[in-house]
Amino acid sequence: MNGTTRELYDWGREAARAHPELDVIDLSLGNPDLEPNPAVCSALRSLAADDTPGRHRYMDNAGYEDVRETVARHLSESSGVPIGTDSVYLTCGAAGALRIVMSALLDPGDEIIVFAPYFPEYLGFIRSAGGTPKVVRAGERFQLDLVAFETALTPRTRAVIVNDPNNPTGVRYPASTWVRLASMLAAYRERTGRLVHVIADEAGCGLTYDGRCSASVLAACAAAWLVRSCSKDASLAGERIGYLAWRAAHSSPRMLALLRTTARSLGFANAPALMQRLLPYVLAHPLDATEYRRRSERFIGILTAGGVDVVHPEAGFLAFPRSPIADDRRFCRLLAGRGVLCVPGSAFGAPGYFRASLTQPLGRIEEAAARITRCAQRVFEARTA
Amino acid sequence: MNGTTRELYDWGREAARAHPELDVIDLSLGNPDLEPNPAVCSALRSLAADDTPGRHRYMDNAGYEDVRETVARHLSESSGVPIGTDSVYLTCGAAGALRIVMSALLDPGDEIIVFAPYFPEYLGFIRSAGGTPKVVRAGERFQLDLVAFETALTPRTRAVIVNDPNNPTGVRYPASTWVRLASMLAAYRERTGRLVHVIADEAGCGLTYDGRCSASVLAACAAAWLVRSCSKDASLAGERIGYLAWRAAHSSPRMLALLRTTARSLGFANAPALMQRLLPYVLAHPLDATEYRRRSERFIGILTAGGVDVVHPEAGFLAFPRSPIADDRRFCRLLAGRGVLCVPGSAFGAPGYFRASLTQPLGRIEEAAARITRCAQRVFEARTA
Repeated sequence: MNGTTRELYDWGREAARAHPELDVIDLSLGNPDLEPNPAVCSALRSLAADDTPGRHRYMDNAGYEDVRETVARHLSESSGVPIGTDSVYLTCGAAGALRIVMSALLDPGDEIIVFAPYFPEYLGFIRSAGGTPKVVRAGERFQLDLVAFETALTPRTRAVIVNDPNNPTGVRYPASTWVRLASMLAAYRERTGRLVHVIADEAGCGLTYDGRCSASVLAACAAAWLVRSCSKDASLAGERIGYLAWRAAHSSPRMLALLRTTARSLGFANAPALMQRLLPYVLAHPLDATEYRRRSERFIGILTAGGVDVVHPEAGFLAFPRSPIADDRRFCRLLAGRGVLCVPGSAFGAPGYFRASLTQPLGRIEEAAARITRCAQRVFEARTA
Repeated sequence: MNGTTRELYDWGREAARAHPELDVIDLSLGNPDLEPNPAVCSALRSLAADDTPGRHRYMDNAGYEDVRETVARHLSESSGVPIGTDSVYLTCGAAGALRIVMSALLDPGDEIIVFAPYFPEYLGFIRSAGGTPKVVRAGERFQLDLVAFETALTPRTRAVIVNDPNNPTGVRYPASTWVRLASMLAAYRERTGRLVHVIADEAGCGLTYDGRCSASVLAACAAAWLVRSCSKDASLAGERIGYLAWRAAHSSPRMLALLRTTARSLGFANAPALMQRLLPYVLAHPLDATEYRRRSERFIGILTAGGVDVVHPEAGFLAFPRSPIADDRRFCRLLAGRGVLCVPGSAFGAPGYFRASLTQPLGRIEEAAARITRCAQRVFEARTA
């Protein structure tokens, strides 16, 4: 959890203790509350009970070859682009994958472009890798503003991160966005000789409401790095398993060797062995996101009816409504006073909004939405008074 | 595995295929071959079968509070120094702990002193954290040369790493060494105002032959960082669980917050949840290192009888004999030609030696020792001829 979220979380726990009458509903933490798919739990039980000798030893830093092969096959099928086993690296969650690819790509002072609203950890990852984040505001309905993006490119730009589905907004980008982004970057390279990598963070793609999760970036961009999680979106957030995959175009034994060295120097020997073995079961038995969708629809329905503007998410358990007042921190403090904890949009580089994590039972979500709406009404009334 | 070890490993697999008559014995990889303690395996089965809701969710970045409390109690008892729950951080293995503390301590260009022979990953960790490794040669029988150490201190020195038991030599340092080191650093601080942290890497301390594992560093040094593994020395090397602990002297909520931010920016959200829960069982049921000791004694007995000089390890499964010729790489190539894979001491900053990982059954260890001795005899004869 990031700093702001953490503060809220601590505040919330403290407030819940000190003011039970507030009946605090905590929508601050993005911590999936659904249980994992029963087939995955059952696989975990069998895997943990298997006492074949050697199952907990070190393996290739990149992970078990058979698991990487399964991932490669899965991605080849869903993207239509042939992905080889040597173009897959198993990691300690999506965060590990992002951090490794950044260290592998960046020289000190290189820039990575990030679209706001963004996942706040990106800034820490980039700076820790010696780079400089450069923030570009998203466009209409949080879609990518490729004109603003092109203006932001400099000779130091080494990569751009696109988070699909987006945390905190829950929006997705159509395949056409990837194609436009790729052709813009191809033209840019033609003109300047500079290669800008595309890092597609699809950590939440297992929770799309339409079940689609097509890795369009691999088909569209030659210099694409795909980051996926098999923990957060499988309700195994604490278990840390994910992967990094890339196109054969820049796949070489040297690339894999570079990633191994980079990962090791960051202190990642390998992704946890047992969770690597579980990964194929997570791919085969994705979580049912229906409950998240139901909560999202109810929450947004109540907010919209109450005059609070919010874009419909297409995945996950997050919503990112517009704050009724420009000062999103102040609005979140007002909400906290009514027993609802949300995170100010400023924490995601998008002041004037707030993030609600719908990781509470439906009844609580409805109650939270009602309180938010009442709080917004008060603010509207105060403004027009 | 580091670069050199990796090359040997690849070479070995290739040679074993191409030249079955070589009957290759691979002593290159430090990959524990004993099975975990049955009590630990049984605990893993129970933990994996427990379907209490929420067991795979995110927790505090520092780890489950009850597990940290268990570790704190364990360390307080063994070291005699009170260690609080907020002075324990659970990590993805000892490597994760080392890397996190380095990023937390170092500013760009700061130096960390490392004693050779050293665990080769240290250099990568330090450089990746923006620091500069400064190598000091160990003294007699691989004990710490504190005179050379003091000479190596500069205004940029931020920390020193002491690896006890040492990889690759298997030697340990008596409690008096920690006391001398601490008093030297206290005097240095008095004189110069500069604080030099002591990072004690005790990743292998679960495999000491006398069963002692006393965390002397915590008693001796105020500015001590203790790094432990509960994976490699529990024969769970692939599972990635370890911890970082420090003295209450520099324990503060701010310290824990700094470590959380640092760990997150490196891509470690938290140590794998299931392995965190397993950690107390690993502490309660350590691996029996008798078999490693037996192999070590046989191996060293044969080498010594054959005129090859080697220091007796006091822990683990590694031995670090002196190469019969100054060129350790050449000697390892000669050994490879006789079907024994060892790693040249140069890879550990100690040319003129080689490392043997005794992670093969006793019979194979004896056979390898015999081959090494014969190879050494040839070299001795060639020299006197």
